[in-house]
Amino acid sequence: MSKAHWKTEPAKLLRVNEGFQLRDIDPDSTPGFKGSKSDGEKALGQGLDELADLQERLFAQSRSGSAEDAVLLVIQGMDTAGKGGIVRHVVGAVDPQGVSIASFKKPTKQELLHDFLWRIEKQLPEHGALGVFDRSHYEDVLIGKVRQLAPPAEIERRYGAINNFEKRVIATGTRVVKVMLHISKGEQKWRLQERLERPDKYWKYNPGDVDERLLWADYQAAYQTMLERTSTDIAPWYVVPANEKWYARLAVQELLLGVLKDVNPQWPAADFDIEAEKRRLAAS
Amino acid sequence: MSKAHWKTEPAKLLRVNEGFQLRDIDPDSTPGFKGSKSDGEKALGQGLDELADLQERLFAQSRSGSAEDAVLLVIQGMDTAGKGGIVRHVVGAVDPQGVSIASFKKPTKQELLHDFLWRIEKQLPEHGALGVFDRSHYEDVLIGKVRQLAPPAEIERRYGAINNFEKRVIATGTRVVKVMLHISKGEQKWRLQERLERPDKYWKYNPGDVDERLLWADYQAAYQTMLERTSTDIAPWYVVPANEKWYARLAVQELLLGVLKDVNPQWPAADFDIEAEKRRLAAS
Repeated sequence: MSKAHWKTEPAKLLRVNEGFQLRDIDPDSTPGFKGSKSDGEKALGQGLDELADLQERLFAQSRSGSAEDAVLLVIQGMDTAGKGGIVRHVVGAVDPQGVSIASFKKPTKQELLHDFLWRIEKQLPEHGALGVFDRSHYEDVLIGKVRQLAPPAEIERRYGAINNFEKRVIATGTRVVKVMLHISKGEQKWRLQERLERPDKYWKYNPGDVDERLLWADYQAAYQTMLERTSTDIAPWYVVPANEKWYARLAVQELLLGVLKDVNPQWPAADFDIEAEKRRLAAS
Repeated sequence: MSKAHWKTEPAKLLRVNEGFQLRDIDPDSTPGFKGSKSDGEKALGQGLDELADLQERLFAQSRSGSAEDAVLLVIQGMDTAGKGGIVRHVVGAVDPQGVSIASFKKPTKQELLHDFLWRIEKQLPEHGALGVFDRSHYEDVLIGKVRQLAPPAEIERRYGAINNFEKRVIATGTRVVKVMLHISKGEQKWRLQERLERPDKYWKYNPGDVDERLLWADYQAAYQTMLERTSTDIAPWYVVPANEKWYARLAVQELLLGVLKDVNPQWPAADFDIEAEKRRLAAS
């Protein structure tokens, strides 16, 4: 943690615990951070090197065959919440060789012929990797619920299935960091308007975004239920106020740094005789 | 091209044409660049934004369903030639969402039960993506030849198979940029020594690297044949002097910039009624 700027770790402040109410979270707020926007941007820059260093150690372990840990960042949020910005500005700082990014869109016909976790399983990061899910299995209890894409009993089944799935993933070495980027309805309107004003942003706009927006309250309710049912001790949710993009990026960076420091990956030891290799090399 | 610093485009100077001799290339040289190392590093930084912008346009096309082009960077070179550094410092500048990196190691048992191009095909970048091959199908005519991993007639067959494969890939929209990072035997010794001196570099060292190093001349001959047989009009090889890492990175960046400018990806047009959407959004 960049102690200079944080009063309290975001991991503590943003964590979804018993009794959490999404409606109590102010999307404009910047919990725990005591500096200005420019302080925040500076802190983000400082943290990038630390993140890149920790990730390189993790990646090194995968190359030397000693990796036993992976990190998976799950990013959820309403349209325009800033998921792509997290990938670009936080994850983008580390060596792309050690990163695997999966972006989950509307399921294909083939994917629909399987359980909803089938396509997720295939995209899990290997040990040594930093995986990122831009949307995830949680869509199946969000749009899946709001749009009634599955019967209520199936939606209900999924909360438990997700918890069991994550329990197994975590037991076999993957740290799961689940982040909901929380924006306000007004902020979304502003961001969608911008996409309609700028020809270099049209590609980010989809008329379906307004269709979903019209169901804002239903989505907030589905998020609330999801948070209640799937924020577990081993895989808690973090709700990150995201109207201020700089804060959301910085907070997610801190969450990742916290997990990576806890993993504490070490440079792999030499699995060869260093002095003998020096002699062989000198003679070559 | 950053005209301020290049006398002649690296695409012209580094291209492998009829009569090319690898032994004539000085790995210490910096063809076409008229500045110092610090000028080079500055130019790299300047080019990164341009690269990121062009790549975002390409990626935008994939998101809007209008992508018809992909770019594939194939990186070859002796151990320590700087392949990872290209990925990190050149490719690392662009949005990781639009990048797919494949690192080809020793083939698995399953891969060996297929033609050598089977595993390659599966890793081709989709339209809209920037793909990177860290090593590639060319290993099968390099270590494959030097180590006699296949009979001579099979090695011979592969040059033609590769050219046909690349012809098809290119015909269906993928620009292929093939780069050999060319270091000297002395520079390799220096870089391997460093890996044996620093505990944070041990993981990059493999005793097998010295085994291959002992066959340096055989590898250079295999590269020469590869360059002669597979540098085609549609998919030429570029031999990049790489003793100076800053030069190699800058030259590869210029090659990528050249190809992307030629693709000239445009922001996708809106496939919806902008004014109607503005009204819907305003009412939402």
